[in-house]
Order: sequence, then C-alpha cells, then structure tokens
Amino acid sequence: MRIARFKAEEREFYGIVDDQMLSITTISPFNKCSAPQTIEELISLSPESWNNIKEALEDQEEIKKDAIYKLADVELLAPIVNPPKIVCVGLNYHDHAAEQDAEIPEEPIIFMKPRTAITGPNKPIIKPEFVKKLDYEAELAVVIGKKGKDISVEEAKQYVFGYTILNDVSARDIQFKDRQWTRGKSFDTFAPMGPYITTANQIGNPNNLKIRTWVNGELRQDSSTKNMVFNVYEIIHHVSRVMTLELGDIIATGTPAGVGVFMKPEPKFLKPKDTLTIEIEAIGKLENFVVEGS
Amino acid sequence: MRIARFKAEEREFYGIVDDQMLSITTISPFNKCSAPQTIEELISLSPESWNNIKEALEDQEEIKKDAIYKLADVELLAPIVNPPKIVCVGLNYHDHAAEQDAEIPEEPIIFMKPRTAITGPNKPIIKPEFVKKLDYEAELAVVIGKKGKDISVEEAKQYVFGYTILNDVSARDIQFKDRQWTRGKSFDTFAPMGPYITTANQIGNPNNLKIRTWVNGELRQDSSTKNMVFNVYEIIHHVSRVMTLELGDIIATGTPAGVGVFMKPEPKFLKPKDTLTIEIEAIGKLENFVVEGS
Repeated sequence: MRIARFKAEEREFYGIVDDQMLSITTISPFNKCSAPQTIEELISLSPESWNNIKEALEDQEEIKKDAIYKLADVELLAPIVNPPKIVCVGLNYHDHAAEQDAEIPEEPIIFMKPRTAITGPNKPIIKPEFVKKLDYEAELAVVIGKKGKDISVEEAKQYVFGYTILNDVSARDIQFKDRQWTRGKSFDTFAPMGPYITTANQIGNPNNLKIRTWVNGELRQDSSTKNMVFNVYEIIHHVSRVMTLELGDIIATGTPAGVGVFMKPEPKFLKPKDTLTIEIEAIGKLENFVVEGS
Repeated sequence: MRIARFKAEEREFYGIVDDQMLSITTISPFNKCSAPQTIEELISLSPESWNNIKEALEDQEEIKKDAIYKLADVELLAPIVNPPKIVCVGLNYHDHAAEQDAEIPEEPIIFMKPRTAITGPNKPIIKPEFVKKLDYEAELAVVIGKKGKDISVEEAKQYVFGYTILNDVSARDIQFKDRQWTRGKSFDTFAPMGPYITTANQIGNPNNLKIRTWVNGELRQDSSTKNMVFNVYEIIHHVSRVMTLELGDIIATGTPAGVGVFMKPEPKFLKPKDTLTIEIEAIGKLENFVVEGS
C-alpha cells in the first residue's frame, strides 16, 4: 500500500495511492473505523481498520464519490510533517565513502535534521543567498511504526511502518567549515520528502533497491541500497541502542556515490532553476527544484 | 514568574512556583481563562490570561484549596517534554574553548539532541554499560516563545519565552570517536532539564548570569554567561538564519570550562551514584544522579 498526504479542495487528507487517490480520512466514516487525522493515528490503525479500508477499496461502488480524488487534481504534501525526530546516517554507502576517500565507520555515524527542514514533492528547495555550495543526497527513509529501545537486528523489521524518499540537501560550504554537519543540513526546505510512504509489507527487502538521482535530466547517482555499509535493520538496531525510537520517527539511511561535491574533474553544485529527481525502486519518484532565497 | 511542570496525585500540571506551587491547570477555570494543558498553550497565554492568574495569586483566599500544592508534595518534571527541536551550540564559552585549545568559531557550531533524551530534575542519568567516558555540560537553555525566521539580534529578545537549565550529558568516547557529536549526546536521559522555566521578564539580562556545576559537592564549573562567545540574542539570530524557530523550541547555549574530560592532571568522568548539581543565577538548581544502565 502507498500512502500519501495531500491537499484537495483546500483540505488536507491522508490517502491511499492507486491510479487514483483514495482519501482515508473521508472513507473512514463510511466504514465504521475511526478516521486517522494524523500520521500517528494512521500508523496506529488496527489491522481491522486497515481491512475495512481494503474492503472499501475492493468494492469502490459503495464508496461515496467524494472519497476519491484524481491524482492530477491533488497537491501532494510531505507524507510526515511533525516527526518526533529525523535521524540521518552519514557515510553509509561503500561507493560514497570511496568517492571521498573516507574510512568506513565501525558503527553508524548519525546526525539530525529539524522538522522545519521538511518540504514536499514538487516544492522548491530554497537556496539562501549566502549558501554557495548546494548539494543533494538521495536517501531511503524509514518510517518507524512503533516505539522501541535496544531493538535487535532480527526484530528491527517489526518496527518499520514503511519507506519513503528523503533528499538530505546539504550546504557543503557550511557543512565542511563547521565540521559538525548539522547546520549545513538544517536549512528550511533542506529535507524534501515523499512522494508517498510505501508500507513495509509491499517493499519486501529494503536492502536491495535501486536508488538514482537526476539533475536536470542528467543521471548523477546510480546505486542500490545493497551498497549500504549498515543495512536498514542494522541501522535501527544501532540507533535504538542510543535513543528510544518513536512512532513517526524518520531515519534517513545515507546516500550513495554521485553527489555534486565529489564530481570529477570538478564539483557541480546546484543552481537556481535546477530540477532534481530521485527515484527509489518500489517507492517512487521525488521531484523538486531549486530557487534562490533571500 | 517561574513555571514548573509537576506531578501530584497521579496527575500532571503546569504550575507557578512560589514558596508553594500553584497549579495553572487547576486555577484557570476559577478565573475564566482557558486552562493550558500543554507547554504550547501555556506559552501562548494572552496577557489577559496571565493577568487573571496574577490577580488570583495576589488574592489567594479566593482560590480553591486544590489549586495549591506544597513544593514538598509534588514531583517536579522536565518543564518541556515535546519540544519541536532541541538545538545545542558547541564551543560557545571562551573559557571552554581555551581549556581544550580549540579555535573560537566564527559562527555558532550547532547540533541537535532528540526529545527522547529529556529527563527531569532529581531523575537518574542512565549510563549505558558500553559508555566509558560520561561527562556533564551545564548550559543555559532558551525556551522559544513564538515562531520566527531570520530574526535580527535586536529583535531576538521578543522570541524568548523564558530560560531553564539543560545538562548536555555527553559520552566523550563516542563523541570523539564519531567526530560528529550527535550520537554521544543523544542517549535517553542525556538531557536533564529544569527545574523550572523562569520567564524572560524576570531574568533581565541573560548574558550575565553565574553558572556553576558541582559533582558530589565538588565545584567543577564556575563561570558566567558573560563568557559566551555568542550571547543569547546572537545565537537566536544565527540559528534563525538557518531554520524557522517554533514555539517550544529549546536552544542550549553551550557550556563553560570545567567539564570532566578536560580536567588536569587527568580527566574525571561520571560514575554510578555520582550526584550532579547545576545552578544558574536567577533560574535555580538542577539536580540529578548517575545510575548504571544495561
């Protein structure tokens, strides 16, 4: 199942994405299950409630017309807007570590992005005037489905609600000057996310998905999550040894080779009007564009 | 005014701290102002609502008995439990930079702590068994009172609701091994906070407050916020150039000299049963103790 947050007729909904979009918020009252108004409620839906929704989907005649929106008529939004935390893993692809001659870490290196950095599909990435070296990082993002601490690698799968794409947009000038990565990666709009959350059961193995980035149509990143140093379940294990994971937390799992700063013979940074497309197999395409801020 | 979150009779309240504790949640219905149930509501109280509370305080005869709790009968909690973000500033005291021969940064170096690290006054700091070099960092913490972006130094004061104390507890072994500071500072219970929020109008100048730490009664940190590299208002300016600040955000403003890792002739790290007391002038004392985790 693919779940999107979207805007239609001036209201916000969570919806199931098919060739059309089905609003869970709207469908619920017709199916005697409580209507999820937030991602927390949606993630917490009981199997029974999900079954009600599935049945409604299979028997769409009975659904009132206003529960269905055409994809073309809705504005997709970032699927999660208020995650309790966004944890990001650095240096987590063998190919990305190799392109910068960095050592492979013994344990995942983490940092965090603030929720105010989140923006949605097809929205601008705003380059502040004083940021000179703007760059992209395509990442598979895990959406945590339930609270947990000290989660074993074997149990980690049970804590995943689904997956989406996160672009870990980075101001390399600030990131490298500070040495701490946080500031250069925390600007408003520096965490485009979406287009949907694909539920874990539909992904199968998250550790073998193609991940690619195009800038203005030029292929820049072309790898697979199988090149991750720590796979999704190992990351959940390691992060949960440090901090309690909560429902709705996002973990971005690192980026493969091909970022602008390490391009040869010279870096290629993002400029206003550049378009970005990130595609992860089985999840979808996240598209954004760059604009100049003040 | 000093505001605390506390537990009494199995319920949680926000209260005004005097020689006794006055529950805002309880008092409100008697004063025709809406009862703040969360820190966001409390911070957003209109001047009129505050006046109602103040009037009630001055005329306590008229307040029903159950609005007042004796300080000795309540359990103090961390004043904020779900801040949208906790931004911390590193290397922000001249004396702390000097004790480690670090350069003074040109702009504030920031990182973030997750909300799951928050714990309250008189609560244990849990040292995971695999953390070998546990340390403290006394910090003045700003509580943001309203949303803002690109805030000037001159306007910054208007965005402060109040101040509290945050102990930026750090696992030095992990912090230095990772080089990124986040992991070593993000363990559950590594952000003790409190004991109260003192409102900004009561503090006057936040950039000239004594700040001290004792470990088992031994004075370790003894400095003043006047030794900060970037003062409170400059920090708000710099951070808000990067990210939108939101109501309830916490900004921890860095620690002075005297942390365990840089003690001479050799480091002194925290051990189970150690007691910590941090005092900041005009704010209060935050006390915690260390226990061994699993």
